[in-house]
Amino acid sequence: MPRTFSSSPVRDLLALTSRPEVISFAGGLPAPELFDVEGLREAFGEAVSRRSLQYAPTEGNPDLRALVADRLTRRGLPTGFADLLVTTGSQQALTLVATALLEPGAVVAVEEPTYLAALQCFRLAGARLVPVASDERGVDPDALAEVVERERPELLYLVPTFANPTGRTLDVARRRAVAALAERHGLWVVEDDPYGELRYRGEPAPALAAFSDRVIHLGSFSKVGAPGLRLGWLRAPESIMRTLVIVKQAADLHTSTIDQAAAAAYLKANDLDAHIGRLCEAYRERRDAMIAALPGAVPAGTRWTDPDGGMFVWLTLPGEVDTGRLVHEALARDVAFVPGAPFYATTPDHSTLRLSFTTTTPEEIAEGMRRLATVF
Amino acid sequence: MPRTFSSSPVRDLLALTSRPEVISFAGGLPAPELFDVEGLREAFGEAVSRRSLQYAPTEGNPDLRALVADRLTRRGLPTGFADLLVTTGSQQALTLVATALLEPGAVVAVEEPTYLAALQCFRLAGARLVPVASDERGVDPDALAEVVERERPELLYLVPTFANPTGRTLDVARRRAVAALAERHGLWVVEDDPYGELRYRGEPAPALAAFSDRVIHLGSFSKVGAPGLRLGWLRAPESIMRTLVIVKQAADLHTSTIDQAAAAAYLKANDLDAHIGRLCEAYRERRDAMIAALPGAVPAGTRWTDPDGGMFVWLTLPGEVDTGRLVHEALARDVAFVPGAPFYATTPDHSTLRLSFTTTTPEEIAEGMRRLATVF
Repeated sequence: MPRTFSSSPVRDLLALTSRPEVISFAGGLPAPELFDVEGLREAFGEAVSRRSLQYAPTEGNPDLRALVADRLTRRGLPTGFADLLVTTGSQQALTLVATALLEPGAVVAVEEPTYLAALQCFRLAGARLVPVASDERGVDPDALAEVVERERPELLYLVPTFANPTGRTLDVARRRAVAALAERHGLWVVEDDPYGELRYRGEPAPALAAFSDRVIHLGSFSKVGAPGLRLGWLRAPESIMRTLVIVKQAADLHTSTIDQAAAAAYLKANDLDAHIGRLCEAYRERRDAMIAALPGAVPAGTRWTDPDGGMFVWLTLPGEVDTGRLVHEALARDVAFVPGAPFYATTPDHSTLRLSFTTTTPEEIAEGMRRLATVF
Repeated sequence: MPRTFSSSPVRDLLALTSRPEVISFAGGLPAPELFDVEGLREAFGEAVSRRSLQYAPTEGNPDLRALVADRLTRRGLPTGFADLLVTTGSQQALTLVATALLEPGAVVAVEEPTYLAALQCFRLAGARLVPVASDERGVDPDALAEVVERERPELLYLVPTFANPTGRTLDVARRRAVAALAERHGLWVVEDDPYGELRYRGEPAPALAAFSDRVIHLGSFSKVGAPGLRLGWLRAPESIMRTLVIVKQAADLHTSTIDQAAAAAYLKANDLDAHIGRLCEAYRERRDAMIAALPGAVPAGTRWTDPDGGMFVWLTLPGEVDTGRLVHEALARDVAFVPGAPFYATTPDHSTLRLSFTTTTPEEIAEGMRRLATVF
């Protein structure tokens, strides 16, 4: 008998949002009209060669690793190329970490709410999930300390910067506190950072990994480059890198040689920071349009986050409402969001929902929010 | 504490064979000079688009799945596109199957010797490996029946055509017998088929999957196209496909959109069968050169396989010899092979070794075999 795993309810939902007349705030996708198609086409043209068509080392393309290490170092996280393992998207990095660090029955602490594909991934590894309370400043270190004492988790999973689904950022004081806790208790922390460079206001916070070697830092080309390449990376201390490489070898031998070569060629020939600047300009405008439209679209008493970057706004509706039911009414009016329940590890708050502003223009956002107002 | 996994001894060995003066029979690589670099460059040029840079469905590119289904059907394995899941190389397919079907402690039966990365993959899943005897005609159905009765394995793993490491092919009568056993006992069989189209003589045997729905068929673009794309596929019955898709989603969301689009564009614009014909011509010559040189290179009493296709010849040396030691002498004389021990699930035969003939010209093979003669 095959083992039984439940599918993602969001995956099933997204299938319903693909009708062209639907204004979808449901996805977590980068805007395709902002992809640097020409730059990437040139990079692939340059990358295709006998060498890039052959098998390659599991650790990844040395040029790409050096280029990424350099970018991380310039962002304040000193990194050498040997600290990095290239992964098939950062989703793979999550599964590698789960396989490398978790025995079945291990405890994983997670911010609540959090990225649902991470929850799925830890569940697949047979882990028991324990939620930690969080607020506007991110995960609460006191609540975390209490969970660590009580549950002895092996791992803490966080999206510290512009979190999925809330858009919140862990502040610097709390980063220090979480890192100190990790050091004191020998806890591993996964810092999932796909959105960190998509900042629309305020000053960058240092990576959580800058405060402790107990932090495994995951990065991705998906939100700043293009997700179709499935390129991510994992920065881990030497003590676990060898195990991660062995697990990666069993997972897929190595990430596409040609996609890695193309990404390296792209990073050499183009100014990724300038491209990210253009992304931020467009996404800032979209974020602002959504935040501006919210007061007129939602019932009195609704709360929402006001993210400094990333892709998401998180709403809590007043009263006894179930957004899992509401979404069907929304779809009937050609607008979509993601109900909040699947982002909870244990007890969901059914009055929550996630809106993404990245793939819709300010005009579409205004129209979509008008449609949502009739649903709420 | 991270879990501890041992690295592949072959991986460590291959690092030693990369000196340019070494004639290496150790790899399992396709010949890079035979890659269709121009055809693939054109395919990538065509493939890069907003759509191929975006996230995509976990199941894979529908065009590519239809093209692969069509190829399998023409080879005598009736397949619809919905029967196929695109994987990040067929190595990933192995890990997906292990995750989907095996609880820790499950029993996996394997031909002995067999592909060592499959052994690693099942070990990582916490499976217990049970070897099944095989001979020149492939795995022995009587030995298999006995193992099935005694050990109740969940899964049987086979490379039925031009096996790694032996080059042997399971004959048709035994395919029927294995399929019947699988049906009778509700056993899952993994048919790993990366080499099946590389046939240098004789008539193709029908796929094992053609005889039973209990067979999960794995295919790959790595040996007939190029491994750098990391493109494989898995043909599975509907009863387990949904679980496999969920596991794949956690593993890497989906395989590189752009590599899939490029492979589909390549298959539409090129005659892959003609390309495979050219590969077979070159590899046949190399195979023949190795088989011709063997009698003059090995000690009396050595036995070797005489493969009809694939990439490998398997040797058993006479007497109490340890090829794991011998390989260091070989490397000192600038020639390399893979010692046989790691291909055994339980008790290794240290007098065995694997030679690959694909990446060396007939002249290099003749010279390499002269060097090997001085080692033996």
